[in-house]
Amino acid sequence: MRNKKLWMIFAIAITSVFLLNAGAPAPDEGMWTFDNPPLKMLKEKYGFEPTKEWLDHVRLSSVRFNDGGSGSFVSANGLALTNHHVARGQLQKMSTPEKDYVKDGFYAKTQADEIKCADLELNVLESMENITDRIMKAVKKAKTDQEALELRKAESAKIEKENLKKTGLRSDIVTLYNGGEYWVYRYKKYTDVRLVFAPEAGIAFYGGDPDNFTYPRYDLDMAIFRVYENDKPVQSKNYLKWSANGADDGELVFVSGNPGSTERQSTMAQLEFMRDYQYPIVLKSLKRRIEMLKKYSLRGKEETRQAASLIFGMENSVKANQGEYEGLLDKNIFDKKQKEESEFLSIISKNPEWQKEFGGAWDAISDVKKKNIALIKPMFFRGLRGSRMAQLALMTVQYVAEVKKPDGERLEGFHDAQLETFKFNLFSPAPVYPQLEEYRLTDGLRETIEELGIDDPFVKTILGGKTPEEFAKELITGTKMADPEFRKKLVDGGQKAIDACTDPMIVAAKKVDPFVREVRKKIEDEVQSIESVAGEKIGKARFAAYGKSTYPDANFTLRLTYGTVKGYSMNGTIAPSKTTYYGLYDRYYSFDKQNPFDLPQRYVDNIGKIELSTPMNFVATLDVVGGNSGSPVINKNGELVGLVFDGNIESLVGTYVYDEVKNRTVSVHSKAMIEAISKLYDAPALVNELLGR
Amino acid sequence: MRNKKLWMIFAIAITSVFLLNAGAPAPDEGMWTFDNPPLKMLKEKYGFEPTKEWLDHVRLSSVRFNDGGSGSFVSANGLALTNHHVARGQLQKMSTPEKDYVKDGFYAKTQADEIKCADLELNVLESMENITDRIMKAVKKAKTDQEALELRKAESAKIEKENLKKTGLRSDIVTLYNGGEYWVYRYKKYTDVRLVFAPEAGIAFYGGDPDNFTYPRYDLDMAIFRVYENDKPVQSKNYLKWSANGADDGELVFVSGNPGSTERQSTMAQLEFMRDYQYPIVLKSLKRRIEMLKKYSLRGKEETRQAASLIFGMENSVKANQGEYEGLLDKNIFDKKQKEESEFLSIISKNPEWQKEFGGAWDAISDVKKKNIALIKPMFFRGLRGSRMAQLALMTVQYVAEVKKPDGERLEGFHDAQLETFKFNLFSPAPVYPQLEEYRLTDGLRETIEELGIDDPFVKTILGGKTPEEFAKELITGTKMADPEFRKKLVDGGQKAIDACTDPMIVAAKKVDPFVREVRKKIEDEVQSIESVAGEKIGKARFAAYGKSTYPDANFTLRLTYGTVKGYSMNGTIAPSKTTYYGLYDRYYSFDKQNPFDLPQRYVDNIGKIELSTPMNFVATLDVVGGNSGSPVINKNGELVGLVFDGNIESLVGTYVYDEVKNRTVSVHSKAMIEAISKLYDAPALVNELLGR
Repeated sequence: MRNKKLWMIFAIAITSVFLLNAGAPAPDEGMWTFDNPPLKMLKEKYGFEPTKEWLDHVRLSSVRFNDGGSGSFVSANGLALTNHHVARGQLQKMSTPEKDYVKDGFYAKTQADEIKCADLELNVLESMENITDRIMKAVKKAKTDQEALELRKAESAKIEKENLKKTGLRSDIVTLYNGGEYWVYRYKKYTDVRLVFAPEAGIAFYGGDPDNFTYPRYDLDMAIFRVYENDKPVQSKNYLKWSANGADDGELVFVSGNPGSTERQSTMAQLEFMRDYQYPIVLKSLKRRIEMLKKYSLRGKEETRQAASLIFGMENSVKANQGEYEGLLDKNIFDKKQKEESEFLSIISKNPEWQKEFGGAWDAISDVKKKNIALIKPMFFRGLRGSRMAQLALMTVQYVAEVKKPDGERLEGFHDAQLETFKFNLFSPAPVYPQLEEYRLTDGLRETIEELGIDDPFVKTILGGKTPEEFAKELITGTKMADPEFRKKLVDGGQKAIDACTDPMIVAAKKVDPFVREVRKKIEDEVQSIESVAGEKIGKARFAAYGKSTYPDANFTLRLTYGTVKGYSMNGTIAPSKTTYYGLYDRYYSFDKQNPFDLPQRYVDNIGKIELSTPMNFVATLDVVGGNSGSPVINKNGELVGLVFDGNIESLVGTYVYDEVKNRTVSVHSKAMIEAISKLYDAPALVNELLGR
Repeated sequence: MRNKKLWMIFAIAITSVFLLNAGAPAPDEGMWTFDNPPLKMLKEKYGFEPTKEWLDHVRLSSVRFNDGGSGSFVSANGLALTNHHVARGQLQKMSTPEKDYVKDGFYAKTQADEIKCADLELNVLESMENITDRIMKAVKKAKTDQEALELRKAESAKIEKENLKKTGLRSDIVTLYNGGEYWVYRYKKYTDVRLVFAPEAGIAFYGGDPDNFTYPRYDLDMAIFRVYENDKPVQSKNYLKWSANGADDGELVFVSGNPGSTERQSTMAQLEFMRDYQYPIVLKSLKRRIEMLKKYSLRGKEETRQAASLIFGMENSVKANQGEYEGLLDKNIFDKKQKEESEFLSIISKNPEWQKEFGGAWDAISDVKKKNIALIKPMFFRGLRGSRMAQLALMTVQYVAEVKKPDGERLEGFHDAQLETFKFNLFSPAPVYPQLEEYRLTDGLRETIEELGIDDPFVKTILGGKTPEEFAKELITGTKMADPEFRKKLVDGGQKAIDACTDPMIVAAKKVDPFVREVRKKIEDEVQSIESVAGEKIGKARFAAYGKSTYPDANFTLRLTYGTVKGYSMNGTIAPSKTTYYGLYDRYYSFDKQNPFDLPQRYVDNIGKIELSTPMNFVATLDVVGGNSGSPVINKNGELVGLVFDGNIESLVGTYVYDEVKNRTVSVHSKAMIEAISKLYDAPALVNELLGR
């Protein structure tokens, strides 16, 4: 066992990348687009070839949670399953000081009891169309990279608008293969989503931050919503049947979901930039903010409730970022990435035509990342960070300014086709916590001063000599931005209303806006335009050198992933492919019931009701990253066998490399969910609906 | 959590060595002799100062199991507790094809049912005396290193004999601090030891080789013997009272036992030799032999029984050796050891007197290890390996030849004071398995040919043109060595009987003997003599440079270790300080009851009888290595709170460095043993005796 040391994982991991065409059976790698699933590979390795119907059914059963996760339809009457941690933001928004749905969970016995989410938008990918040629044609006449970027943005906005008009569907331009391909993805959009069931945070996130991103694991990280249209439950034609047995050890399984982002095809210059500048800044800031929020929580129970979900999210980010960062710090991984790039460059350089067309792209990116360094801190710290109301104020100010312009010239996010979603967020009735906002805003301003210096023009202009405390207090106590009606009125009043508005938060937003635009413009002109043109070239070079045998980097669009239910070597021994409820109680007693290893009272009182040998969580060689949370795990019959909620600690380097030996996706077992709901939550109607009885 | 990657463990580990005198609180490091316990450190760090009575009581309650483990008296009537895996050899020897005590366990309801061990000797350390001056005086007149070695051996034999005569106690010369000190250790010896209780191997070694040397863990690795003298149970004045509650998280605990060997004070040349020659040869050979034995086991159930304990022992060795070897391969550890040595050399070199006296020792060892290279394979492979009867034959031949000589001139192991123990082993009635012996001997000879070549003088002389199969068959089928009476008769007949003996095994042993003596002599003359004189110098140099603030390397003599019951960071999360029976069943069901995660039927049938939240195993920052198996874990009151049986995977580098952050000793909880014996084994008398009721 001992020969599977961490440095050996990587030695193995790194052989798996870009060997897809080699003789050995391909690893279970890849986040494949639904237009290009690895059919040949699946047939050869697993003797299974999904049909078009299978693929369509899976795609149309998959639901993107725009809060940053994935999910699926699991009943004919619009039940949608996702993770508790994906639902958490909405649970927080529907909670009050009297009723904490995050902590205590929720179950709606009847449809009338279901609680509508404040601002949750779900998307189902209805269709996709390759528009690469059209985009290429549009940018052909560009004389500079900046011009090419402008033209591409204009053409993209045009295509989105056309598609929205033609189909009535949310239509997003999707860049794949570094710009080797452009697509329009058309989504059916749902904005009336109601909470049906959520367990207590204590069981959904059992083991807390320590157990996060690890395995063996004992979490019931689930939540169930019902999707409505015209005030009636959606009659979902496409939904996943619940597998009563789940998947066996060694079984082939699939995940359909929306991986957030990977950097597997990034250049060395891009990786170095992230390693040396981005991660250190992000991690330092996250850790500071967690400390600050923990201090705030010490004030009392209600303060603890307010901050809990923020702390949860930030601790999760720290752990994930730390894992990715260490992946980049790992010399073995970095050397391997270097070797891959050298080989790629060598293939390109041997073909004079390719060399001429693509060869300069790597140096172009390298130059541009150097310019990026000076921009990263202003981009990160010039803003009123930590206040939702400040964010809404800036959104309001920018909205009014942007919609006056022709569609193609607006900032990204403000195109006609995007406005409905934008306004859905802007007018969200979700509650704000003024005391917490003031606390966070104060500390955010302090951090800005520390990072940029007291003489930074942003600091001078915004604070105008006030202390962060004074300024934050003035803004938070004086503003009406908490009221959605106030925001609506401002938007309806247009530029005149904004100009005349004396609400201190709007006044501040008006001062902040030029700084945000300035750095954004600089990044577009000096970095993004060049980086994206060079990226396109590298994407094309990759097609030229390797064909379309690979998959594009993740970007929170729908992907299909396949793998095997399988344990792995860890800690000198073997991790089993699944855990059981016995293990949950082992951990509970092993840690003397101490937080975060305590249990909701329901689980203490009713231990005798649970069949403790029921599988709880399981692992599979599925190539999954953040954003996939809440994705269904699906068997060959298209049934739901599990619910993705995490990866093991070894999966965190997945941003850069996939390692079939150690990388595991952690999911809640389909049996575990039914066992808990039926034995502990007195919810027979829900169980029957899930099992289609 | 993620920042505790394996390479960081070492970064932390390596700061802990030789910082005993630094400002920070000392780590829980050290295997301290009972003459020099770290009293000051204990008082400062834990506010606890063991009294002389406490120390004497613990020492006299500790029992060395000469099969290679440790143990303790746990009742007033001679009950001695150790590990199942320490007892395993004896269990194997008392088993038959009809009754497999290893697999099925054993409980003697009455004293009449207890089973006497074939050849188990226990030692209790009665007293110790520093004889450094006497040894130094004896070797003073030596003109060469070889002469010094001879003189030291002769003086040692004399001291042993004198002490045996004077006290009636087994008296061993013990070298500490590389020869910086010599001691005589006097042991009360017990050879009538009877089995009282052993659980099934399936629960004693739950999780098998995969879980070996790992944690969290769920093993009941225990066995209980009763020690007799004059056919009556020993009335042990000194025994450890059983703690009904065990130790709490964070509690100070001690271990008194016999760590086998460490190399913390070895020179770089010695470490390099082990890394580059010793470990590769040992590991290769062990792996080959395991494969061979597994092939043998495929022949049937009885063959499986015969080979099981051998495979168990060898797999354990592979895992331990692999961990140690990888420690040496780890650049961080090796660099740190190098740095320590450089600092040590630098301190010595700054004092001209020290430099003159000790300075040459490191180079002397370096030179000698180069000569050692050519001797390692002959030493390892020139022998009839794999046959107990061949080993007994060589012992017989050598015994008769040695005892004719004056005591001081004999080979080590044949001195007068050692003969009783030697004959106890030589005349053991333990069964041999001729079929297995033939199989192993054949393969051992094949391996010898592969390693030394067909033209090696040993191969030519011994095989005389026969194939390994032919030769092994001839020896095993023709010999009477399985019969202890035959061995006795030969010994009683003296050289004449040996010379006349035509038993093929004795004939072969007479041919093997000169080869064994030749390589032994060469190693003594060319390596050991120089290495031990240089080692003495380094030991003295260490005293000069650092004083006696440290502890000597382990050598299977009694040591006191202290530490805290404490979990640790692992696998991205935290390992709890203890496990429970719940976890046992989690692992059972998680692995679908597959071997080695299956359970004895008793545990399946009676799960309802067990209080599953009972602690099962626990970890502490105790600095323990192989040989400590079976040691008692003791609280401040001198009560038994646990039973050492393993270390975690991170502890394997403990041969070279101790790391309080990650190194953990794994023990069976005192509660777990009582829970199982009382609830599952229907043994109230035993429980009452253990609890002193």
